[in-house]
Amino acid sequence: MKELSVSVDSLWVLISAILVLLMQAGFAFLEAGSLQSKNAGHITGKQIITLAVSSIVFWAVGYGVAFGEGNAFIGTSDFFLNGVPSGADSIFVLFQTAFAAVSLAIAWGGFAERAKLAVYFIFGTVFVAIIYPVVGHWVWGGGWLSTLGMQDFAGSTVVHLQGATAALVGTLLLGPRIGKFIDGKAKTIPAHSIPFVYLGTFILWIGWFGFNAGSTVSVGNGEFFGYVALTTNLAAAAGALGALFTAMALRKTADIGAMCNGVLAALVAITASCAFVEPWAAIVIGAIAGAFTYWTSIALEAKGLDDPIYAFSVHGISGVIGTLSTGFFAAPALVKTAGVGKAGLFYGGGFHQLGVQALGVITAFAFVAVASFIVLSIIKATIGLRISAEAEKAGLDVSEHGAYGYGETEK
Amino acid sequence: MKELSVSVDSLWVLISAILVLLMQAGFAFLEAGSLQSKNAGHITGKQIITLAVSSIVFWAVGYGVAFGEGNAFIGTSDFFLNGVPSGADSIFVLFQTAFAAVSLAIAWGGFAERAKLAVYFIFGTVFVAIIYPVVGHWVWGGGWLSTLGMQDFAGSTVVHLQGATAALVGTLLLGPRIGKFIDGKAKTIPAHSIPFVYLGTFILWIGWFGFNAGSTVSVGNGEFFGYVALTTNLAAAAGALGALFTAMALRKTADIGAMCNGVLAALVAITASCAFVEPWAAIVIGAIAGAFTYWTSIALEAKGLDDPIYAFSVHGISGVIGTLSTGFFAAPALVKTAGVGKAGLFYGGGFHQLGVQALGVITAFAFVAVASFIVLSIIKATIGLRISAEAEKAGLDVSEHGAYGYGETEK
Amino acid sequence: MKELSVSVDSLWVLISAILVLLMQAGFAFLEAGSLQSKNAGHITGKQIITLAVSSIVFWAVGYGVAFGEGNAFIGTSDFFLNGVPSGADSIFVLFQTAFAAVSLAIAWGGFAERAKLAVYFIFGTVFVAIIYPVVGHWVWGGGWLSTLGMQDFAGSTVVHLQGATAALVGTLLLGPRIGKFIDGKAKTIPAHSIPFVYLGTFILWIGWFGFNAGSTVSVGNGEFFGYVALTTNLAAAAGALGALFTAMALRKTADIGAMCNGVLAALVAITASCAFVEPWAAIVIGAIAGAFTYWTSIALEAKGLDDPIYAFSVHGISGVIGTLSTGFFAAPALVKTAGVGKAGLFYGGGFHQLGVQALGVITAFAFVAVASFIVLSIIKATIGLRISAEAEKAGLDVSEHGAYGYGETEK
Repeated sequence: MKELSVSVDSLWVLISAILVLLMQAGFAFLEAGSLQSKNAGHITGKQIITLAVSSIVFWAVGYGVAFGEGNAFIGTSDFFLNGVPSGADSIFVLFQTAFAAVSLAIAWGGFAERAKLAVYFIFGTVFVAIIYPVVGHWVWGGGWLSTLGMQDFAGSTVVHLQGATAALVGTLLLGPRIGKFIDGKAKTIPAHSIPFVYLGTFILWIGWFGFNAGSTVSVGNGEFFGYVALTTNLAAAAGALGALFTAMALRKTADIGAMCNGVLAALVAITASCAFVEPWAAIVIGAIAGAFTYWTSIALEAKGLDDPIYAFSVHGISGVIGTLSTGFFAAPALVKTAGVGKAGLFYGGGFHQLGVQALGVITAFAFVAVASFIVLSIIKATIGLRISAEAEKAGLDVSEHGAYGYGETEK
Repeated sequence: MKELSVSVDSLWVLISAILVLLMQAGFAFLEAGSLQSKNAGHITGKQIITLAVSSIVFWAVGYGVAFGEGNAFIGTSDFFLNGVPSGADSIFVLFQTAFAAVSLAIAWGGFAERAKLAVYFIFGTVFVAIIYPVVGHWVWGGGWLSTLGMQDFAGSTVVHLQGATAALVGTLLLGPRIGKFIDGKAKTIPAHSIPFVYLGTFILWIGWFGFNAGSTVSVGNGEFFGYVALTTNLAAAAGALGALFTAMALRKTADIGAMCNGVLAALVAITASCAFVEPWAAIVIGAIAGAFTYWTSIALEAKGLDDPIYAFSVHGISGVIGTLSTGFFAAPALVKTAGVGKAGLFYGGGFHQLGVQALGVITAFAFVAVASFIVLSIIKATIGLRISAEAEKAGLDVSEHGAYGYGETEK
Repeated sequence: MKELSVSVDSLWVLISAILVLLMQAGFAFLEAGSLQSKNAGHITGKQIITLAVSSIVFWAVGYGVAFGEGNAFIGTSDFFLNGVPSGADSIFVLFQTAFAAVSLAIAWGGFAERAKLAVYFIFGTVFVAIIYPVVGHWVWGGGWLSTLGMQDFAGSTVVHLQGATAALVGTLLLGPRIGKFIDGKAKTIPAHSIPFVYLGTFILWIGWFGFNAGSTVSVGNGEFFGYVALTTNLAAAAGALGALFTAMALRKTADIGAMCNGVLAALVAITASCAFVEPWAAIVIGAIAGAFTYWTSIALEAKGLDDPIYAFSVHGISGVIGTLSTGFFAAPALVKTAGVGKAGLFYGGGFHQLGVQALGVITAFAFVAVASFIVLSIIKATIGLRISAEAEKAGLDVSEHGAYGYGETEK
């Protein structure tokens, strides 16, 4: 019985790992579809590099930094999994590898359409080996934020805010794409394939069931994983409508890309809070994240930031919203089931949990921003971050990979 | 042991729910690929709206109407799930939400390429809140057809015939697309992407394992869910070949779209019968549905019906075939395992079960037709159902959403 | 407990079957994307035919040949599953059907862009009914290679080498595509959609978790299925990098198609060995397979072989690499857990296991080559294998199916 129970939990975690791995294709099509066809081969192909680098580097180093024994700040054991891991351990490593690969995929959003191929290998390796797992250790690996009772059930901060912060640093160091700003005004570069944007968004929505409900790492505890799946789905739905109606109100257009980003923003926000909040609160959190993300995407672009698929708004700002949300909405009974932290402000929990959440957000952001800035500045000063203007105009498909992504329609 | 068994069943139902949710992407690509590129962004984006509306409305209202306590005709409890549901209940709600969303996605087939965006919100809400769950209550929620022993294992009638009937009413009230009929003759509007049609069809095939085998809502009972998966797969295969050979016989062309619709027609037909029939019968049912659907698609179009992706043939006529099929093919041993109704005509069961099935089909069709007609007529009389001719010619992408679905190829 | 354990194992095998079925879409998009747009509708549509034929023929005949009682060379019972199978048996049949369909999909790679539609039906039927299951019986059905202790955990030889050998015979009998060789020099026919190539590759990567880890057919044995998933993922990652760096070294280009084929080659190679080797060895095997496949793809093409998507290199040569690899890398402790054969050369096992593996590879290759040659030669001599030059130039979409795959861009 005990043994079978371990096997069943492992089965659920492997299925979840597969769902989270699937999210790689979500990012590939979301990003490729949202951007220009001359970079579509590069963007999708790059997603293979992301997963390949993450799989090997996290197995070798990152897992040990995040989940190894060590101190409050960093893990220092379990490198290379010490040889041949058990079946259950193998599955947990795969699950966590998939999370690291998601965070890295988010980061690349800020680099899109202008970064050198080598950057993806070098920064990707450093990010997965050290930057990402250090914060992972703080929150999930028994580190200091874990000790404080920070509530980040599936990683609004650990996964999304981290990736988004690296994206922000990347986009700032790279500068805007050629032609994005004309006389200081942002120009719309049209999505080359909305069906791909939809495909990516929808795959992410589906994959998120593994992301959030899989983070129970068990089918027991009163089938709590099912409750987490429900709040996740409700938030995503509310995020779609929140963003769409905001777009219709602010710009009089039922913008499909905005709706898709609303889905994702809501999913990012519910990631921390899915286990702690009631269904109605999941809808509120999702709707707020969807609406707010649309607004910040426009606002940041208007300020001259060229974050090509709005990675910082969708994963960063929503990551913050989601992490802070439990400080308001965490319900006592659910907090007890989930077993982390305390109830939120709206349930009489006072400001304690909100303070812990804010501390987590601020320190994670600061650490990733500084670390990414150092690594990317070194790359910039040595081999360079950005391709030539000529290569950028021709597109990365032909300039970095020697063939057009749509090979019969060379321009 | 009891407890672990509940967890494992819940795990299977959640996986099934995910597979059924995946079918949303199936409908998106089937519909977008089969139709014109100028509407491809709209069609795929609309699929997000379908899922968002279904998720929130079914949670709030539809689930209570279908599965709440009430009378033989309607459920009247469990609105908003009474707050915080258990994990197992959450999963069952998600599973049923996915079914409602499939039915709604089918309905939209009849509205394609010419309905106003607001229609998707208004009719979608009414359909998921009331129309769909009322019939669901009759058959699955302890209502009067359930009492009579109607065999509709996974919803040939509940899900498919309902959606198709709404599609039929929609297509009749909207009228044909501009340019579909020239001098009374149907003109072929070519599919803009057969790879997308394939993708949609194949996703639906895969998702159907959750749809049918998931409807056991248990992995026990001698692993009966596995048997259901086998009959489902055999029917789908037979439907592909039945439709393809019919197309080759009638029109001398190995029509890929027809083959894909044959797969779907077979899956629709086996949906009611998957648990009740032997493997050979699954193949017969699938082949008949595949072949017959091809013929009715052509026949109805020739009579002036512009049902753009043949929703009524594929889901309606096949839904009827499937529901009636158990009246003929239900095998006594399997009926005993499944625990619903009686054996069919070919197994000495007489006309009893066939009569029950026919009654279910007729009443479901009549209810949905009348209810949809009333709601859509009200919309037509007030805000209107159809976009302007100018907008239709330009395509819904640019006219309703302000951007082309393939943004680099504006026409 | 015993009963629940059977149910849980069945659940895992059904999930794995679904993952392996998903690989059909992987082959569809890999092949369609890698080739010309004028054949894209045909290629994706053909994948429905592959699954339909496999599902019915393997159920009726192939399963009995592979897994029925019989002698050391062929099974001769269980045709049509003897009527109504149990739930657990149904699932195992579905799982094995999915494997047969993968092998057939691999075979078609060699026939791409020039074979007649009838060939897919006729050779497909013979392959799934007899050729494939005979070798399956030898290795997995209690046949003579099984008795010798051949290690082919999930089918580097049974599935991949078999399909690749049929592909090779097909490509030799069909001859090169028009325009592939000009003055004896191979000309690059550009991939019409790298995003599709990526989609196909990634789906295959994901599906392979079902392929390899599902081949444990159990979640017990210390959750061994999880360990198998880990080695599979590490090999795939190493294959991507191995192929990409080889391409950059040999041709100075970060060739995305080559990287994708590297992923697949690595997955093919780890298929036999996933259960027998340590993580570091999985990485070595994956990297070697990825690098070597790139080189053989170029080398065979330079020798005048037009294997349009390099099926023989990716699945054949890597299938051999993978099958032989356990002869070197099989670790004693893992061999004991997996329960098949002996340790490899590098672990002091001597040449015994390597000899068994080589014998398996040689006899499987010889049998499939001869059998395929006979069947395809008969087809060639009667109805013919190849479409007319005119039809080939126009593309199979319009010539075999009567409509362009991208219906709005007729050329």
